[in-house]
Amino acid sequence: MIATWIDQAAHVLMSRIDTLATLSEEPDGLTRSAYSPPMRHVHDLLTAWMHYAGMHVWRDNVGNLIGRYPSRNPQARAFLFGSHLDTVRNAGKYDGPLGVLGPLLCIEQLHHQGVELPFHLDLIAFIDEEGLRFHTAYLGSQAVTGHFKREYLNLVDDDGITLAEAIREFGGDPAAIALDRREPADVLGYCEVHIEQGPVLEAKNLPVGVVTSIAGQTRIALTFGGMAGHAGTVPMQMRRDALCGAAEFVLAVEAYTRQSPDMVATVGKLQTEPGVSNVIPGSVTLSLDVRHHDNDQRQVVCQLLLERAQHICTTRRLKLDWTVVHQNPATPCTLALSHLLERAVSEAGYRPHFLPSGAGHDAVAMAQLTGIAMLFVRCKDGISHHPDESVTVEDVSVALDVVDRFIGLLANHYRTHE
Amino acid sequence: MIATWIDQAAHVLMSRIDTLATLSEEPDGLTRSAYSPPMRHVHDLLTAWMHYAGMHVWRDNVGNLIGRYPSRNPQARAFLFGSHLDTVRNAGKYDGPLGVLGPLLCIEQLHHQGVELPFHLDLIAFIDEEGLRFHTAYLGSQAVTGHFKREYLNLVDDDGITLAEAIREFGGDPAAIALDRREPADVLGYCEVHIEQGPVLEAKNLPVGVVTSIAGQTRIALTFGGMAGHAGTVPMQMRRDALCGAAEFVLAVEAYTRQSPDMVATVGKLQTEPGVSNVIPGSVTLSLDVRHHDNDQRQVVCQLLLERAQHICTTRRLKLDWTVVHQNPATPCTLALSHLLERAVSEAGYRPHFLPSGAGHDAVAMAQLTGIAMLFVRCKDGISHHPDESVTVEDVSVALDVVDRFIGLLANHYRTHE
Repeated sequence: MIATWIDQAAHVLMSRIDTLATLSEEPDGLTRSAYSPPMRHVHDLLTAWMHYAGMHVWRDNVGNLIGRYPSRNPQARAFLFGSHLDTVRNAGKYDGPLGVLGPLLCIEQLHHQGVELPFHLDLIAFIDEEGLRFHTAYLGSQAVTGHFKREYLNLVDDDGITLAEAIREFGGDPAAIALDRREPADVLGYCEVHIEQGPVLEAKNLPVGVVTSIAGQTRIALTFGGMAGHAGTVPMQMRRDALCGAAEFVLAVEAYTRQSPDMVATVGKLQTEPGVSNVIPGSVTLSLDVRHHDNDQRQVVCQLLLERAQHICTTRRLKLDWTVVHQNPATPCTLALSHLLERAVSEAGYRPHFLPSGAGHDAVAMAQLTGIAMLFVRCKDGISHHPDESVTVEDVSVALDVVDRFIGLLANHYRTHE
Repeated sequence: MIATWIDQAAHVLMSRIDTLATLSEEPDGLTRSAYSPPMRHVHDLLTAWMHYAGMHVWRDNVGNLIGRYPSRNPQARAFLFGSHLDTVRNAGKYDGPLGVLGPLLCIEQLHHQGVELPFHLDLIAFIDEEGLRFHTAYLGSQAVTGHFKREYLNLVDDDGITLAEAIREFGGDPAAIALDRREPADVLGYCEVHIEQGPVLEAKNLPVGVVTSIAGQTRIALTFGGMAGHAGTVPMQMRRDALCGAAEFVLAVEAYTRQSPDMVATVGKLQTEPGVSNVIPGSVTLSLDVRHHDNDQRQVVCQLLLERAQHICTTRRLKLDWTVVHQNPATPCTLALSHLLERAVSEAGYRPHFLPSGAGHDAVAMAQLTGIAMLFVRCKDGISHHPDESVTVEDVSVALDVVDRFIGLLANHYRTHE
């Protein structure tokens, strides 16, 4: 049974998210990059809302807005909630803000009920997770963990402005970013609430799910080189059609991946050269994106797929080139925190469902500092990074209920054990 | 055994082709569109060469340059040779000019030997076959056959110049084009010498081949509609990946076509939407180009392929859209003329090899006026429409020998029968 405050809070959350969605760099649609004028507006609003929830508010040097619901004990450690306020281009409105405003509304309720916690509850609104402006991700969370690299400051946006200049203009001191890092000993853990960005919870008919792990990812660029020729004059048997080889590979990727539970692999980009209707494709370049929560399994599948590509090329007298463009390992969630989330979901009256996250999140960076947990909220049709991104107020109510119970369970744990 | 004059003529031909290749609209590479300043230079040179070969020379209103090696009998009918002088962008130098300069050098030899023919031998250098400038093909040959449509005159090039203006500026009278048409009763036949633009003769180790038929062509645009989604979060089993469906179709095209002798089918263009590495393709548009010398067989394969595409889409929960973009029937070569070419090849000492033409030629248009024949000349690696297009002087010698013998056989035939 959901408490009355939660229903109201869910409606407030939806209304606040609608408000934030109007704060965009573009007249049509939501685009809000780090350090932009609309980001300043968002910080102003969020500061006011954090104050209303009884929090101390400050901005660190990289530009994260941080609110603390303080424990009475100034020596207490902090438990962290967080998510990001920046967006992709033409974004949906829930990706990021849900994970800031959700915990915030729970804290507001704690404050109005005068609840005291055995730890500081810090809510971090990260300045940059999507990397839209400086083409790199996790700027905000890396500053918190102490993994922000000095050379990031020389990154340049499309207008030629360096990250250092943007930070300074936003009020931060680039030279002091390293001083803002949290010490592992001062932090109890990190929890992030986020929309699923996939269709699993909808298919399972569940409002929320507990994340087991954030998938590791390998991105490979492959080129199949054949021989261009006149579409009318080269007999089929004499062709070295790069697209036919690439097509075989696309289907191999699908077939191999379907055999491995939780593995996903995608050919999202495919370009034929010269790419005209009356010329046999002489070369095809394509992208392969492989993700899994087990690093070994991911590596094995990548290896198998590259061998398959080589076999296809040998058989078809094509030339294969490939490069690993990007690679990052899987980030498992912390068992103890995930169990608390599981209990909170159960107590809220829902079957706890565990699922991996195929997308990256600030939690990936935060895992370098402390234990992490993530709560996924169902979204419509699995659509994200798109204006059609949609979450129901009912599911938000459940998420708030779970977060509230999770904080309660955490507090009990630390009251008992410390 | 090849006569001495032929070897010399072949070297002259190569040198003339090199000269024509310098007459281009672009400083690097050969691009010569209809009615362009370099086309004017080509006409000046060709006029001089035709005069040297004892021909009467005139330009018709559409802009074809025509040389006549006249029979003594002014009432005689005409046998036509021809090919085009315009090129594609960044073209090879043999596609077109070979079919003008080859017969011209044979006629030059006839003239210097004082040979008299029982027919006029007309050599037509067509002004526009590739359609580079006005995006339509066969302008020159259609004027000769009387199929030049008045509405062509309103076609506009990239600079906003109409075809009528271009013709007028080139010295023609657009209103008089219809008067230039040949009457079927005045024409004995048409023969075109052309590079193969394919790899068959090279693979057969033969310098020349006799064309059986110019393939009919169907061009279809197909769209496979699926559901875009996050490459990390949508499980394989829940995907509606448009590229996987398209890949299955590409392989089906290859497999079906390989079963039909002389059939060629090509997917040359394939575009994925949104086409980024971390998004499952939501839609794929591709081109299908099917060619065969038998219209029924071509239609049947197109029908089978569309059924296969529909089946793939039904199985994969994709949406199929398709449109026939272009369709033209096959043009068979005339048996009697092809037999004369076959005899000429034999007498020149080569095994006659018959092959279809997958590419279109002026002969397609000319078939509406008279019987046609085509002689293909081997080219290196089947490469055409490319600066690497290459023909050997030895193969040109053989082609000249065959054309010379073909004219001889024709003359004997008409001396005997008329």
